[in-house]
Amino acid sequence: MELTVEQVAGLIGGSVKGDGNATINRLEKIEEATEGSIAFLANPKYTNYIYTTGASAVIVKSDFEPEKEIKSSLIKVADPYGAFAQLLEAYEQMTAKVKVGIENPSFQDESATIGSDCYLGAFSYVGQNAKIGDNVKIYPNVYIGDNAEVGDNTILFSGVKVYADCKIGKHCKIHSGVVIGSDGFGFAPQEDGTYKSIPQTGNVIIEDHVDIGANTTIDCATMGSTIIKSGVKLDNLVQVAHNVELGKNTVIASQAGISGSAKIGENCQIGGQAGITGHLNMANKTIIGPQAGVPKTIKEEGKVWFGSPIMEHREFLKMSIILRNLPQLIERVKQLEKKS
Amino acid sequence: MELTVEQVAGLIGGSVKGDGNATINRLEKIEEATEGSIAFLANPKYTNYIYTTGASAVIVKSDFEPEKEIKSSLIKVADPYGAFAQLLEAYEQMTAKVKVGIENPSFQDESATIGSDCYLGAFSYVGQNAKIGDNVKIYPNVYIGDNAEVGDNTILFSGVKVYADCKIGKHCKIHSGVVIGSDGFGFAPQEDGTYKSIPQTGNVIIEDHVDIGANTTIDCATMGSTIIKSGVKLDNLVQVAHNVELGKNTVIASQAGISGSAKIGENCQIGGQAGITGHLNMANKTIIGPQAGVPKTIKEEGKVWFGSPIMEHREFLKMSIILRNLPQLIERVKQLEKKS
Amino acid sequence: MELTVEQVAGLIGGSVKGDGNATINRLEKIEEATEGSIAFLANPKYTNYIYTTGASAVIVKSDFEPEKEIKSSLIKVADPYGAFAQLLEAYEQMTAKVKVGIENPSFQDESATIGSDCYLGAFSYVGQNAKIGDNVKIYPNVYIGDNAEVGDNTILFSGVKVYADCKIGKHCKIHSGVVIGSDGFGFAPQEDGTYKSIPQTGNVIIEDHVDIGANTTIDCATMGSTIIKSGVKLDNLVQVAHNVELGKNTVIASQAGISGSAKIGENCQIGGQAGITGHLNMANKTIIGPQAGVPKTIKEEGKVWFGSPIMEHREFLKMSIILRNLPQLIERVKQLEKKS
Repeated sequence: MELTVEQVAGLIGGSVKGDGNATINRLEKIEEATEGSIAFLANPKYTNYIYTTGASAVIVKSDFEPEKEIKSSLIKVADPYGAFAQLLEAYEQMTAKVKVGIENPSFQDESATIGSDCYLGAFSYVGQNAKIGDNVKIYPNVYIGDNAEVGDNTILFSGVKVYADCKIGKHCKIHSGVVIGSDGFGFAPQEDGTYKSIPQTGNVIIEDHVDIGANTTIDCATMGSTIIKSGVKLDNLVQVAHNVELGKNTVIASQAGISGSAKIGENCQIGGQAGITGHLNMANKTIIGPQAGVPKTIKEEGKVWFGSPIMEHREFLKMSIILRNLPQLIERVKQLEKKS
Repeated sequence: MELTVEQVAGLIGGSVKGDGNATINRLEKIEEATEGSIAFLANPKYTNYIYTTGASAVIVKSDFEPEKEIKSSLIKVADPYGAFAQLLEAYEQMTAKVKVGIENPSFQDESATIGSDCYLGAFSYVGQNAKIGDNVKIYPNVYIGDNAEVGDNTILFSGVKVYADCKIGKHCKIHSGVVIGSDGFGFAPQEDGTYKSIPQTGNVIIEDHVDIGANTTIDCATMGSTIIKSGVKLDNLVQVAHNVELGKNTVIASQAGISGSAKIGENCQIGGQAGITGHLNMANKTIIGPQAGVPKTIKEEGKVWFGSPIMEHREFLKMSIILRNLPQLIERVKQLEKKS
Repeated sequence: MELTVEQVAGLIGGSVKGDGNATINRLEKIEEATEGSIAFLANPKYTNYIYTTGASAVIVKSDFEPEKEIKSSLIKVADPYGAFAQLLEAYEQMTAKVKVGIENPSFQDESATIGSDCYLGAFSYVGQNAKIGDNVKIYPNVYIGDNAEVGDNTILFSGVKVYADCKIGKHCKIHSGVVIGSDGFGFAPQEDGTYKSIPQTGNVIIEDHVDIGANTTIDCATMGSTIIKSGVKLDNLVQVAHNVELGKNTVIASQAGISGSAKIGENCQIGGQAGITGHLNMANKTIIGPQAGVPKTIKEEGKVWFGSPIMEHREFLKMSIILRNLPQLIERVKQLEKKS
C-alpha cells in the first residue's frame, strides 16, 4: 500500500503542515525512520529526533510548534500515540494472515464443542466437554483442559495451558507459556513439620478483552473463582495467586506479583516487579510504582504510591531528599558537639 | 453428597454448637458463603464475616466465643484450617475424575519403562530409558528426557519439561510450565570480552511429596545434583539455580530466587520476590520476609529476617520507626542550632 | 576414560605439584570430591576444603601456596575456573549423545527449509517459510512460527516458542519454556477508561552465541526489532521488553527485567531481580547489583551501581553505614539537647 500524507491525515482526522503529497508505505520509529515512512512524536524525551529524522511524515500533538526547521511533513492530532496506534492497526490488518482450519495431528475430544472459523494448530489439545467459541485461534501445543471454555475471537498462542473448568472470555489474547488454573499455594502445617496440601477446587474466570503476557501464571481459587475482569492487561511473568480479583481495566507490568485473595480495584496501574500482599483491598485508580511493596489495604482512590513498604509519592520524594542529605545532618551534629 | 452438621463434625473430630441437623452439600468461603454450604474461620481478619455469613455451618477454633448472635451452626476444632483442608480433600476425592490410559498420538521410547495405572496424555514424550512409576499422571505436552525418572503417584501437569537424567520422587505435583534440569548459569569470562559456557553436566534430584508451582525453573548442577528434599513446596515462577540444596519441608513463595550453590535448611519459609545470594548456608527454620535480600550465611536457627539487605525482624521494625521520624530529628537539630 | 594427573596437566597447560601418576576418571566439586576425581579451587571462600577434600587432584591458581599439608596432587594454572571448564567441556563431548533425525509425529510445513544433520523432536512444529540451518537441534514440543529463522548449530530445548518472523543466530542455546517474540506491552488509554492494544508489528533478532535460560521472555518490537547482540547470556525468568537492545556479551541474571526501548551497552552485568526502566541508555561495562532499580540513563562506562534507586557502589556502602549508625546519631542529638 502507498498513501499520501494527506490521505493518512484524513484517516486519522489530523491536519497537515508541510507537503501533503509525499507518499508513505510503512511505519517506523522516529529515531530510526527513513524516507517513505511515517513516525510519531508523543514522548517529549524524543522531541530532538524530529529535527533529524528521515521520516517523510511525523504525527505530532496539535499544539506542537517546531523550534527549528523540520524536513518531514507534520500531521497534527489531539493524541499522536492513539493516532499512530490506529495506523498500526490498519497496517496489521492489511498484512495479517488469518489462520483457519485444523492442523494434524491435533486432539479434540469428541464431547468438545468447537465454533466456526477456528484455527486448531498441530499438537493442540481440547479436552472433554470443553467449549470453544467462533473464530478462536488455538496455536500449536496449546492445552485446554476438560470443561474449560474459550469465548469468541480469542487467541491462544503456542504453548498456553488452561486447566480444567477455567473460563476465558471473548476478544482475549493469551501469549505463549501462560498458565491458567494451576493450584493455589495453600498448605496446612502439620505437627511433624511437614505440610499438607489444601485441595484447590476452584477455577479461574477471565472476562472479555483481557490481554495476558508470556509465561504469566494465574492460579485457580481454593474455592470459588480467581477473577480477571474485562479489559485487564497483564504483562509477562506476572503472578496472580488464588482467589485474587483484578478489577476492570487494571494494568500490571512485568514480574509483579499479587498474593492470595487480594482484591485490586478498577483502572489501577501496578509497576514492574511490585509485590502486593494477600488478603487486602486496593482502591480504584491506584498507581503503584515499580519494585514497590504493598503491605496493606489502600482505601483512598487515585493515589500514587512508591517504595517498599509504600509511601505516598510526595512523601517518598521527601524521604529520598532526607536520606541524600543525611551526611550533612551528621556534619551539623558534629559542629554542635564541638560548640557544646 | 449431603451431610448433616453433626456428621461433618464427626468426620473432623469437632463439637457442634447450634443446629446439628442442618444439611450441607458444598464448601464456600466465609465472606461469600450461602445457605447449604460450610465455611471456616482461621484468619482473625475475617472474624467479622461470621456474623453476616450465609453459611449453614462454620468451622471455628475451640476457644472461639462469639460477641454477637450467629445464624450459622458452629463446629469447634483445634485447627479450623486443617479441618477444612480435610473436608476439601474428601470433596476433591469424591468429585475427581481419574485419568488413566494412553492418549494418541503420544511418544514413549521403546526402551522406556512405564508403570501400571498411568495416564499418558496426547503429545507427551517419554525419552530413552526413562523410568515412569505406577499411577503417574503425565498430562498432554509433557516432555521427559532420556534416563529421567518419575516416582509412583506423581502428577506432571500439561507442559512440564524434565531434562535428561533428572529424578523426581513419589507423590509429587509438578504444575504446568515447570522446567527441571535446564543449564545452570555458568560462564567463564575470556580475554576478548566474550564468555565461554561452563558445561553443566549434573542433574536435578527431587525427593518425595514435593509440590512445584507453574513456570518455576530448577537448573541442573554443574557437577553432581541440585537437590530438592522431601516435602518442599515451591510456588509459581520461583528460580532455583544450579547446585542449590533445599532442605526438607522448606516453603518458597512466588517469584523468589535462590542463587547457585546456596544451601537452604529444613523448614525454612522464604517470602515472595525474595532473593538469596549464592554460596551461602541458611539455618533450619529461618523465615525470610517478602522482597528481602539475603547477602550471606545465616547461622542461627529459627530467626525472622526482613529487608534488603536483611535485618532481624525486631531491628527492621526499629529502623522503620527511625526512618519515619527523621523529619523530626532534622527539626530537633535545627532547634539546637538556633540555640547554640 | 582414565587419565593421569600429568596427562590432565598437559591438556590444560598446567604444572604438577605432587603425584603426577595418580589416575582420574571424573570431575567433582572440591567439597564433595572422592578418590579418583579431579576438582578445582577458584573462589577463596572454598580454600579450606583443599585440606580436607578427597579429590585425587585439584586445579589451583599458579600462586597458590598451601598453609598445611595437602593429600591431593595440585595442578597449577593461571585460571583454574577456565581450565576446569575446559575439562568439563572435553568430558561433556566424550559423553554426549548427539540427537539427529526426525521423530514422528512432528510438523514441518512443506514451504519450510531444513538444513542437514538436524534433530526434529516429536510434536515439534516448523511453520511456513521458516528456515532452519544445519545441525540445529529442535527438541520435542518446540514451536517455530512462520518465516522464523534459526541459524546453524543452535539448540532449542523442549517447549521453546518462537513467534513468526523472529530470527535466531548460530551457536545459540535456548532453554525450555523460553518465549521469543510475544507482543510488547503497549496500550493506549481511551476516554472510557479502557485500553486499546497498540499492534506490535516488529520482531526479535537474536545474534550468534547467545544463551537464554528457562522461561525467559523476549517481546517483539512495536516496529523494527528487539535486538539481542552476539554473546549475550540471559539467565532464567528474565524479562526483555519490546524494542530493547542488549549489547554484545552482556550478562543478565535471573528474574531481572529490562523495560521497553532500553538500550543496554556491551559487556554489562545485571544482577538478579534488578529492574531497568524503559527508554534509557546504559553505558558499556556497567555493573548493576542484585535487586537494584535503575531509573535513568547511565553515561559513564565501567561503574558499579547498587540499590533502588541506584547509587554508585562506594556511596551505597557509605549510606549503609550511615543508616546503621542512625540510632547513635539520635543518641548524640539527645545528649546535645540535655546540655543545651
